[in-house]
Amino acid sequence: MSKNLKEVLFSNKVYANNFNKKRNLKAPPIKKFAILTCMDARLDPAKFAGLSEGDAHVIRNAGGRVSDDVIRSLLISYKLLGTKEWLIIHHTDCGMEKFSNSDIDKIFNIDSKNKIDWLTFKNNEKSILQDIFILKNHPLVPKSIHIYGYIYDCKTGNLIEVEESAKV
Amino acid sequence: MSKNLKEVLFSNKVYANNFNKKRNLKAPPIKKFAILTCMDARLDPAKFAGLSEGDAHVIRNAGGRVSDDVIRSLLISYKLLGTKEWLIIHHTDCGMEKFSNSDIDKIFNIDSKNKIDWLTFKNNEKSILQDIFILKNHPLVPKSIHIYGYIYDCKTGNLIEVEESAKV
Repeated sequence: MSKNLKEVLFSNKVYANNFNKKRNLKAPPIKKFAILTCMDARLDPAKFAGLSEGDAHVIRNAGGRVSDDVIRSLLISYKLLGTKEWLIIHHTDCGMEKFSNSDIDKIFNIDSKNKIDWLTFKNNEKSILQDIFILKNHPLVPKSIHIYGYIYDCKTGNLIEVEESAKV
Repeated sequence: MSKNLKEVLFSNKVYANNFNKKRNLKAPPIKKFAILTCMDARLDPAKFAGLSEGDAHVIRNAGGRVSDDVIRSLLISYKLLGTKEWLIIHHTDCGMEKFSNSDIDKIFNIDSKNKIDWLTFKNNEKSILQDIFILKNHPLVPKSIHIYGYIYDCKTGNLIEVEESAKV
């Protein structure tokens, strides 16, 4: 067993020993909202957004981008589990902003036939607006869902509103 | 501005006021591992696995399933950002275990031509083994990556090892 796994299991034992079984939380998020953000190790959405267990869905991938899988998850989030607001949060110093799709294809030695859309982006604000646009125009996403766009600043811990996101 | 958004931004202000700028964390995860788990609101992987900001990538979707987007994220995680171990963590009482793909198609009134693979499953342990199998047999995933399977118990907070996962 690796050192990391030992540490994870030790921490988990402490967590479980202090677990509040009386809360008996159910699957639908208490606060009826979902956060989509990046997998980046520096981000702890529960901490930076003040979430407790049970409050909100948290979806994370490379970049916090709206992929087919994110759409699948958000559709389940609202239709099966009742969320009504979605926060899309990208962040400063994101790896997906530093590479292009073809850079990454080259790193993996992927030929032109087997290209992967790595969902890289050039401009953080635009990438959020694009992601919100995709969601708002998806045929299975109702107009009643509120979608907000923010950028998390890795140097300060602040969430910064993408002002045009309200207009998408 | 909604009540939820006000609360998130208030909590974020407190978080940013206490932010340790001296740590100056970089993108590559300090502990060189990634966790894939479900978006379920009851799960706080940083808390139940003892992670601090900077430690590990966290990828989350409906079910903690290995989708194309998860493969994209994990490939970036290891090749661009140096992770060497991946933990796949599903959980008890998961919505994806209670519905079938055709149940969800019916809820959304989706016809047979436009079906979505919702990545539902019937057996939690088998779903983890299947997900690990997909990763271990992916042409871009090197054999050197260690992949572990666990189930998080929502009633106790415990991580339970899927024993056969080491053999996949």
